[in-house]
Amino acid sequence: MKLTPTTSGVIVIAPTPFMPDGAIDAASIDRMTDFFVASGVTGITVLGQLGEAPKLEHAESVDVVKRVIKRAGSLPIIVGVSAPGFAAMRALSRDAMDAGAAGVMIAPPNTLRTDDQIATYYKQASEAIGADVPFVIQDYPLTFSVQMTPAVIRRIVMENASCVMLKHEDWPGLDKISALRGYERDGSMRHISILCGNNGLFLDFEMERGADGANTGYCFPDMLVDVVRLSAAGKRDEAHDLFDAHLPLIRYEQQPGPGLAVRKYVMMRRGIIAHDTLRKPGAALSTAAKAEVDYLLSRVARVDARARL
Amino acid sequence: MKLTPTTSGVIVIAPTPFMPDGAIDAASIDRMTDFFVASGVTGITVLGQLGEAPKLEHAESVDVVKRVIKRAGSLPIIVGVSAPGFAAMRALSRDAMDAGAAGVMIAPPNTLRTDDQIATYYKQASEAIGADVPFVIQDYPLTFSVQMTPAVIRRIVMENASCVMLKHEDWPGLDKISALRGYERDGSMRHISILCGNNGLFLDFEMERGADGANTGYCFPDMLVDVVRLSAAGKRDEAHDLFDAHLPLIRYEQQPGPGLAVRKYVMMRRGIIAHDTLRKPGAALSTAAKAEVDYLLSRVARVDARARL
Amino acid sequence: MKLTPTTSGVIVIAPTPFMPDGAIDAASIDRMTDFFVASGVTGITVLGQLGEAPKLEHAESVDVVKRVIKRAGSLPIIVGVSAPGFAAMRALSRDAMDAGAAGVMIAPPNTLRTDDQIATYYKQASEAIGADVPFVIQDYPLTFSVQMTPAVIRRIVMENASCVMLKHEDWPGLDKISALRGYERDGSMRHISILCGNNGLFLDFEMERGADGANTGYCFPDMLVDVVRLSAAGKRDEAHDLFDAHLPLIRYEQQPGPGLAVRKYVMMRRGIIAHDTLRKPGAALSTAAKAEVDYLLSRVARVDARARL
Amino acid sequence: MKLTPTTSGVIVIAPTPFMPDGAIDAASIDRMTDFFVASGVTGITVLGQLGEAPKLEHAESVDVVKRVIKRAGSLPIIVGVSAPGFAAMRALSRDAMDAGAAGVMIAPPNTLRTDDQIATYYKQASEAIGADVPFVIQDYPLTFSVQMTPAVIRRIVMENASCVMLKHEDWPGLDKISALRGYERDGSMRHISILCGNNGLFLDFEMERGADGANTGYCFPDMLVDVVRLSAAGKRDEAHDLFDAHLPLIRYEQQPGPGLAVRKYVMMRRGIIAHDTLRKPGAALSTAAKAEVDYLLSRVARVDARARL
Repeated sequence: MKLTPTTSGVIVIAPTPFMPDGAIDAASIDRMTDFFVASGVTGITVLGQLGEAPKLEHAESVDVVKRVIKRAGSLPIIVGVSAPGFAAMRALSRDAMDAGAAGVMIAPPNTLRTDDQIATYYKQASEAIGADVPFVIQDYPLTFSVQMTPAVIRRIVMENASCVMLKHEDWPGLDKISALRGYERDGSMRHISILCGNNGLFLDFEMERGADGANTGYCFPDMLVDVVRLSAAGKRDEAHDLFDAHLPLIRYEQQPGPGLAVRKYVMMRRGIIAHDTLRKPGAALSTAAKAEVDYLLSRVARVDARARL
Repeated sequence: MKLTPTTSGVIVIAPTPFMPDGAIDAASIDRMTDFFVASGVTGITVLGQLGEAPKLEHAESVDVVKRVIKRAGSLPIIVGVSAPGFAAMRALSRDAMDAGAAGVMIAPPNTLRTDDQIATYYKQASEAIGADVPFVIQDYPLTFSVQMTPAVIRRIVMENASCVMLKHEDWPGLDKISALRGYERDGSMRHISILCGNNGLFLDFEMERGADGANTGYCFPDMLVDVVRLSAAGKRDEAHDLFDAHLPLIRYEQQPGPGLAVRKYVMMRRGIIAHDTLRKPGAALSTAAKAEVDYLLSRVARVDARARL
Repeated sequence: MKLTPTTSGVIVIAPTPFMPDGAIDAASIDRMTDFFVASGVTGITVLGQLGEAPKLEHAESVDVVKRVIKRAGSLPIIVGVSAPGFAAMRALSRDAMDAGAAGVMIAPPNTLRTDDQIATYYKQASEAIGADVPFVIQDYPLTFSVQMTPAVIRRIVMENASCVMLKHEDWPGLDKISALRGYERDGSMRHISILCGNNGLFLDFEMERGADGANTGYCFPDMLVDVVRLSAAGKRDEAHDLFDAHLPLIRYEQQPGPGLAVRKYVMMRRGIIAHDTLRKPGAALSTAAKAEVDYLLSRVARVDARARL
Repeated sequence: MKLTPTTSGVIVIAPTPFMPDGAIDAASIDRMTDFFVASGVTGITVLGQLGEAPKLEHAESVDVVKRVIKRAGSLPIIVGVSAPGFAAMRALSRDAMDAGAAGVMIAPPNTLRTDDQIATYYKQASEAIGADVPFVIQDYPLTFSVQMTPAVIRRIVMENASCVMLKHEDWPGLDKISALRGYERDGSMRHISILCGNNGLFLDFEMERGADGANTGYCFPDMLVDVVRLSAAGKRDEAHDLFDAHLPLIRYEQQPGPGLAVRKYVMMRRGIIAHDTLRKPGAALSTAAKAEVDYLLSRVARVDARARL
């Protein structure tokens, strides 16, 4: 079952659980996958930016992909295959698709500057992995230093039939969603799925601008599922009420660097994974930071019982 | 009265109000200054990043400085003097100090990379403006692409007696505050004032890590004053309750680009300035964005009556 | 007399001569201007990147412009007006044109990324300085981090009637000249003057690809004049023979950073300016570097008598 | 036989030869290796920046390494192992050393900014590949955007016993060599080998400043061998005469982007490799560029018979 342009809901970005000694924690992968399925997500992305992919050897990466796919049943799995060269990208894509992945996600290398360079890169990437492999554009200028205008995204979509989704994490990004949906309305771009990243920091309004859901890894993906559902159902105030209760923690987890350690710490406290270990090199959370996260959880818990730990 | 290393509270970053035709709106400068004074701020920074300084001619800049200084009475005024060359920096510093400013703020040019380059730049800048002019380091890597370690900041502080304050807006930044305060405790750095920027996005915890207050321009500086006061008084939950009520709007206003238009729009709605005009080039807020801000205000108003507009 | 799209020859980039104490050396400005005129250059650019413009106060900048214009007689003078904001750019342009300049040169700020951002910037800049002021695009990605495709340059040319020249210093850049001249041939772009920078490092082949001349500051502008003349006259081998004799020194002077000190040192040794002082901050040439330049001059002198000093 | 800090001479950067259909051209690898050996180089670096390493699958990379090592006899082989993560770096290092490589080369990821980040990265990299694996620092700010001061390089050398060589390609870079050799003289840094890159553009003076040789891939490595030998023998004028004859072509080949196509084209014309194919994506040389290279070769041939093709 391949990824299509009509995907909606929450495709959660999965972290990679490790044992305290740095080995991959297979049992936690299974438990985490079960939790995601039970949470109502519509898919899982593995080996993304926050999956510590560059710390995994190729064989480990393939093992993670296979394990999650097997465990997740019918849920579509997206695999991050960004690489400094097309050879490595093709190799990982092939292995992922052979293992049953639904599609791949491709971020642009940070050397791209002009509109032509960006569009050409995605054309070459699509050729490298094969035109039959559905792919997701990751539009994350803050991390990749590559700025794609709505028109460039449209060009990528129209030049590559296998482009089915945008992981939208430009900042600011609300008007970008409006512009892309405008292209669809004026007939200049076919429809693609837009799922939002950035730890969900603007998910409340992104849904209202036309996004189809979220594609991020906040430590309460079950809350993201609720917000997307409430928003899609037109229950605006309820969606915002729940979202706002989590926003102080969302913001805290969205910090580049310590964010992943926060996420793993909360997921450990929630019992989703066994350890909050980051594979080396990766800084642990300071005592002060842990106390701050605990305090934030206690405040979220006043509104959302899932934060009562 | 010059800026000292013991400054605390909220030094608000002032926007520059314009008439619909782009002329400087002197009446709004006065009204805004009066509002700031009444809000309990401890100082005002003019011609900062969000003061549209690059759009002002030199004479206009000096006029704005003079007008605010005159109106603000005994409040210390800090003037942003960042410039591509030391000649322009010296000229504006001299004019500002002659007009009665309390100090100046200097951001690093985005060509700086190594620790030595950064420390040398501040040494040269201090020599250029004169060792008697108190200055503030603006540490804002997201915008300036210059990354200063705590050790580099310590070096700047120890090499320049006239360095009295840090406008802290690194991201993530909490551990940086802890590190700098640690240097003071271990005796390796003299005390400086740390006021936080980033639209106050982490002000709640920054205060708890040892910051002295805020140095930012959120459209409710009176709320920032309250949070700083509550936090300093040890009223932790109250500080967070007020802060969290504003966080959805803080986050929205912190977007690079449209953020300033949001700020001016709310300040206009609050009656602080007459128009939400940005001088050209500067994009106006979209209709959708205005409606989103209105909605956010209505939600803040459930907790904070000042947002009932 | 304003700059036109048919300019050719060598428009030399003038350094700003200083006294040993950092004051502007007016006598050297005059002597240098006389030398340029005698060398057969077709124009002079002042306050460019290597004119130490950011170290000059506004009044000093205007004085330099006026002095060179007065001394240069009928030669067109171009003034670098790049600035972090349109207000300063407009102010300097106005002063320059009032003083009799032939046009201005505008470099893009290094925040620009997308094609639209670049084209929009030049449109806004042209509006800021006035549509009657002829301007030169400075295309220097190595220093400004802004990459303009040939199509973006065409767009700027076609959207702004006052754009008359390209200071071409992309690297690699030969195919870019071919592409732009191709646009002229296929009728999609009107003709503009293309003068090459980069210290002339590729001037030999740039002329053969269709450039109209040089717009750079190599310490032997009289040699550049000869190369442009020989190349335009079809004397290929002679042009390369002279060029190659200078190439070891051209390469040495083209180093970012010490390059300007090399240039001033040689111009001092040639008697064109009195001192090789750089205004602070600016590093002097090391003893080793001076000896290397002297050696290079002695080698150039075997072919070009002008290097016998 | 492992790489030591006393390496000198020319360690040539090998391109990867391909068949017209993009397959690896094993016969050309052998012929090229034989040519290098006959040229008097003291080592070979494979899978460097210009070895198109990111276009090779892991198995292909290992094959190339093994083939060159087997063919090169006793010559030390260095393998480029730069990677976005330590897992891939460790895997390739292990495979390379197992196959008999003499050491590895590591370039910094372009996210590094502060001195601490750079030093920490090399410490972690050395731990990842194993303290027994000799490594080369690649200092190439133009491509990697990472600026290492001489003091940072000293720190890396002193913190990692397995750091044995610097591939020096900073620009400007002459004073950096002097500074590093000064550290050795004042006893603050142990001796390491400094071999220069940048296509040899400053090799003439780099040797005189204290470099031990070249580590670059100019299409006439045999000429580099001669220049290094002449310079080491104190035959200054002869070294410069030969170098200067090649400089127009060195400069042409040093262009980022088309440079590799130039190199392969000349190596094909010299009969060193069978085809000038670049694996996709990689632009072929334009007709105009080929004619320019042919012309440059004909000019070099007036002094150096090896260019008579």
